[in-house]
Amino acid sequence: MAHEAKMIRAAVLAIGDELLSGRTRDANISYIATRLDTIGIVLCEARIIADLPSAIISAVNELRAKYDYLFTTGGIGPTHDDITADNIAAAFGVEISPHPEARRRLLAHYASASLEFNPPRQRMARIPHGARLIDNPVSAAPGFIIDNVYVMAGIPRICQAMLDGILPTLVGGVQIHSVTITANMPEAQLADFAAAQQAAHEGVSIGLYPFYAPAGLGVSLVARGHLPSVLCEIEQAVCDFIHAEGAQIVERPVSTT
Amino acid sequence: MAHEAKMIRAAVLAIGDELLSGRTRDANISYIATRLDTIGIVLCEARIIADLPSAIISAVNELRAKYDYLFTTGGIGPTHDDITADNIAAAFGVEISPHPEARRRLLAHYASASLEFNPPRQRMARIPHGARLIDNPVSAAPGFIIDNVYVMAGIPRICQAMLDGILPTLVGGVQIHSVTITANMPEAQLADFAAAQQAAHEGVSIGLYPFYAPAGLGVSLVARGHLPSVLCEIEQAVCDFIHAEGAQIVERPVSTT
Repeated sequence: MAHEAKMIRAAVLAIGDELLSGRTRDANISYIATRLDTIGIVLCEARIIADLPSAIISAVNELRAKYDYLFTTGGIGPTHDDITADNIAAAFGVEISPHPEARRRLLAHYASASLEFNPPRQRMARIPHGARLIDNPVSAAPGFIIDNVYVMAGIPRICQAMLDGILPTLVGGVQIHSVTITANMPEAQLADFAAAQQAAHEGVSIGLYPFYAPAGLGVSLVARGHLPSVLCEIEQAVCDFIHAEGAQIVERPVSTT
Repeated sequence: MAHEAKMIRAAVLAIGDELLSGRTRDANISYIATRLDTIGIVLCEARIIADLPSAIISAVNELRAKYDYLFTTGGIGPTHDDITADNIAAAFGVEISPHPEARRRLLAHYASASLEFNPPRQRMARIPHGARLIDNPVSAAPGFIIDNVYVMAGIPRICQAMLDGILPTLVGGVQIHSVTITANMPEAQLADFAAAQQAAHEGVSIGLYPFYAPAGLGVSLVARGHLPSVLCEIEQAVCDFIHAEGAQIVERPVSTT
């Protein structure tokens, strides 16, 4: 059975005061989730924490022990509130100092942009000992990998570029497939049938997501699992049930909030 | 000093597989953060977890002990994967059963909509013993409050309505003010000055947020604290510095990703 295959589990730790003041809405967690999903790595948990040494150290040590992979975002820029690298080093009990290759990349980047490689920018060359660099094709300043912890930038464009670069190097699990069926019927009308399908298909996860659009209410059923054949079976059964209830398969409205 | 006032601290726990598969991007955390901010409650941490009993129970018990308030979102609808209420009850070690007032509200709601009050919908009347209801002006099914834990819906429109209803009942702290100054200069050029301002103003939190827009790069400095007079002082100093460097105060581009 597919669900007996080893599940590869990951967590994301998003670091930054601005994500907790409401000033900035995190954009990285769902991107990372989507990309990991394509290679069969299951995102099991995400946390958003402040730029606080004790919070970073304890969350990093808890999550790296608990999951196969930990991806952090944020706090590796040039300013005084960019304290992620130092506290990753502290979490691992290793030193941190300028990394020759990181320094070389930053020097080249700022030289080509005719910008000064000043002390704040030099901070971005500081990497915990024993870490390997993550390429930053956008603005040169690298992320890094230490053990199973992947430290990436918080700016979405850079975070995404870093993740896209490391994705082929990650060891994935059995790929997860999904089917989505949306119908113009109330969630509750599909609930018992969905629960019965869930009970009948171990290793598949079935969720119901209602929406309330100006054109009327409806529900999406999402089934996720390793075996496409089982998902096809569920899809057929759900469509039959929807039609038997006198409802139709519809498009889900784009915005449902 | 303002920062000696007791700080009221909160966490958000967003519950739902769909938030971790990349299918749905959470919209509640930043809304809750913004609203709590207006009454001086500091959101210190947010977590996103799956619809998994052990994950819910352990996160609820950890976060309710650690913070003054815990707000949960998601998992209180009519379907088999709506397991939040049961696991909040388990976390508190209390029973759960149909709540007369919740049942009355749901009955009235479905009667007025000419919809059947079927068993899945009846599930939404189940409330842990000892909890008080949170009004749901959108779709009747209530949230609930047990001790310092506020259990709300995941659908953003309902979550927001629930929060708006309970906000006046929360005990806030000293209100947090902020100023934002955006300049057309590289983040690194402002970094040392910002660090010096941070060092000189205990109780104020200063962050730098760069952007890379088609029209050019720039940086926003955000200072947050309890005393408007101190923030004004910082604002003046930062503006003077920006002008002395030959840069200008600008509008931040709307999208920076």
